[in-house]
Amino acid sequence: MTTIGLLNPGEMGSMVGAAVRSGGSRVLWAGEGRSAVTRKRASEAGLEDAGSVPALVSASDVILSVCPPAAAVDVAAQVAKLRFAGTYVEGNAIAPATAREIGGIIEKGGATFVDGGIIGPPPVKQGTTRFYVSGTGAERIAALLTAGPLQAIVVPGGPGAASTVKMAYASWTKGSSALLLAVCALASAEGVEDALVREWKISQPDLSARAEGAARSNAKKAWRFVGEMEEIAATFAAAGLPDAFHQGAAEIYRRMEVYKEGPAPSFADVLRALTPRRPA
Amino acid sequence: MTTIGLLNPGEMGSMVGAAVRSGGSRVLWAGEGRSAVTRKRASEAGLEDAGSVPALVSASDVILSVCPPAAAVDVAAQVAKLRFAGTYVEGNAIAPATAREIGGIIEKGGATFVDGGIIGPPPVKQGTTRFYVSGTGAERIAALLTAGPLQAIVVPGGPGAASTVKMAYASWTKGSSALLLAVCALASAEGVEDALVREWKISQPDLSARAEGAARSNAKKAWRFVGEMEEIAATFAAAGLPDAFHQGAAEIYRRMEVYKEGPAPSFADVLRALTPRRPA
Repeated sequence: MTTIGLLNPGEMGSMVGAAVRSGGSRVLWAGEGRSAVTRKRASEAGLEDAGSVPALVSASDVILSVCPPAAAVDVAAQVAKLRFAGTYVEGNAIAPATAREIGGIIEKGGATFVDGGIIGPPPVKQGTTRFYVSGTGAERIAALLTAGPLQAIVVPGGPGAASTVKMAYASWTKGSSALLLAVCALASAEGVEDALVREWKISQPDLSARAEGAARSNAKKAWRFVGEMEEIAATFAAAGLPDAFHQGAAEIYRRMEVYKEGPAPSFADVLRALTPRRPA
Repeated sequence: MTTIGLLNPGEMGSMVGAAVRSGGSRVLWAGEGRSAVTRKRASEAGLEDAGSVPALVSASDVILSVCPPAAAVDVAAQVAKLRFAGTYVEGNAIAPATAREIGGIIEKGGATFVDGGIIGPPPVKQGTTRFYVSGTGAERIAALLTAGPLQAIVVPGGPGAASTVKMAYASWTKGSSALLLAVCALASAEGVEDALVREWKISQPDLSARAEGAARSNAKKAWRFVGEMEEIAATFAAAGLPDAFHQGAAEIYRRMEVYKEGPAPSFADVLRALTPRRPA
């Protein structure tokens, strides 16, 4: 039986852990110093509490990093410092250059590095979520991670390839949602929302609903998307493409960070939050 | 019978002219010094050649400006200089601030200004194309322009409102197309196109076809979109929203300007043109 250490049982991580567990692996997390909310989530997902991070690291064959993009390098550095010698799977929404940087940190610590990227919602239903992996040993990791509702897919191209798939995918989904919200904020701030919505009804019949859906489903998660948009911008720049789209998207999600805590805002609230500097 | 002077019978202008003519108006253009292609297009649209621009201006009750966004101010200045005293309809894809600037130029010359913006393809079939107008006298102009396959709609809010509707609309259609092409260029440049296309087939089933359609239908028109994206960026900035999305879109269309003349490129050609500085 393979023991997998899961470093951040957040919304996504805990469901990935539950899926992998249903495939027969033992899944640990480190409860020491974590909040009651996280503890409840980990326990509901059936994860085993190893106690401290060092205890988790020494007990694990494979470590899975699933955390907000901005924390990914620190998480890896912490594991490398503990001389982890198993396989480290980097599952976050980060630029391929960041993934390769993490690979260097991890290998220097003595472990094997597998790059990864998760596409889809937390895996609860079959067919919704894929864990892309690339690099040496990706096949073995894909076999471990294909469990329950989660499917793992090997991407050829070595470390960075799986992260690039994730970046390219999210550059459209989250980038276009941010653009759409900005468009609605413009129309609203300039007083032409009715005319635009009427035109959309004729020629872009799904856009109004898509915009309202983007506000509803992204408002409370927007704080996490800021770092992801910055990683995507870096990915575009490294490929010689304009990074401006996702600099714009990062700014839109930054203005929505206020909704991290508290009740979900209305569509009109979100549009107002996006144009704090209304023209005179 | 109202005489309408049409200043640029391009692809859009000539069909707008033909539509308005079918509503009973007389439509003039100024053939002096224009190319054989433009002459043929104007004549096929049934437009009457007034000869020179001064002759057109002095014979027209209403002047319709339909030209590439970057030329809109110059066209208006030329008409104002000729002391046009009728109604000038600004029909271009420009920022509301640019439209109001043109309004100032036109009114100083002695004419009435009506702001406008066209949404949809050149009006050939009923129901595809709407001419939004705003400002004093917009109702009368809407009645003139609702003819044949063209429908005109008055937007409340005065000069600039119709241009804002156009900017907001195109900020999504052309902005999201540019984003989608950039995403495909990224995946292609980084060697993960197959993995992305396979993922899209599962979770975003219309995106591959949409991307190929965007390349096909935009390649030869991209040179015109650059100025429009810059006008949209200015519109966003003036409303306190990030202008970065459309700075990025302007750069994408700038890299496609090479396709203005010559045969339509393949999808792969377009993606290669978008990443001239491939990573080493």
